[in-house]
Amino acid sequence: MTITLNVQGMTCNHCKMAVTNVLSELAGVQHVEVHLQEGTVNVEYDEAKVNVEQMKEAIEDQGYDVQ
Amino acid sequence: MTITLNVQGMTCNHCKMAVTNVLSELAGVQHVEVHLQEGTVNVEYDEAKVNVEQMKEAIEDQGYDVQ
Repeated sequence: MTITLNVQGMTCNHCKMAVTNVLSELAGVQHVEVHLQEGTVNVEYDEAKVNVEQMKEAIEDQGYDVQ
Repeated sequence: MTITLNVQGMTCNHCKMAVTNVLSELAGVQHVEVHLQEGTVNVEYDEAKVNVEQMKEAIEDQGYDVQ
């Protein structure tokens, strides 16, 4: 399963790494791609193990807004 | 001795930390203050131990431009 999240506030490569890392740490997340310019994050995941709400929380904990 | 450096490309708190940390690691640097909005970095330092060129190099190594 793949989802595209709209994330506000990612400005630089540090932000990209912060979001990539925190999502990758979630069990069930298989692949993460952050597109800084577009403000989007593509996440490939196992929906039996993780849900979108958990992803949003993880990203928001890093200080970014998920729309 | 205190200097104000104009640094381009610092966009977020990760950038602020990266610049603060790399400068603080230089022997002779006593205090660092990054102002994101202004794009400036105030550095208090011992000019017998460190020079501005070393600071610039350290910042540029992190991927920012010093003017």
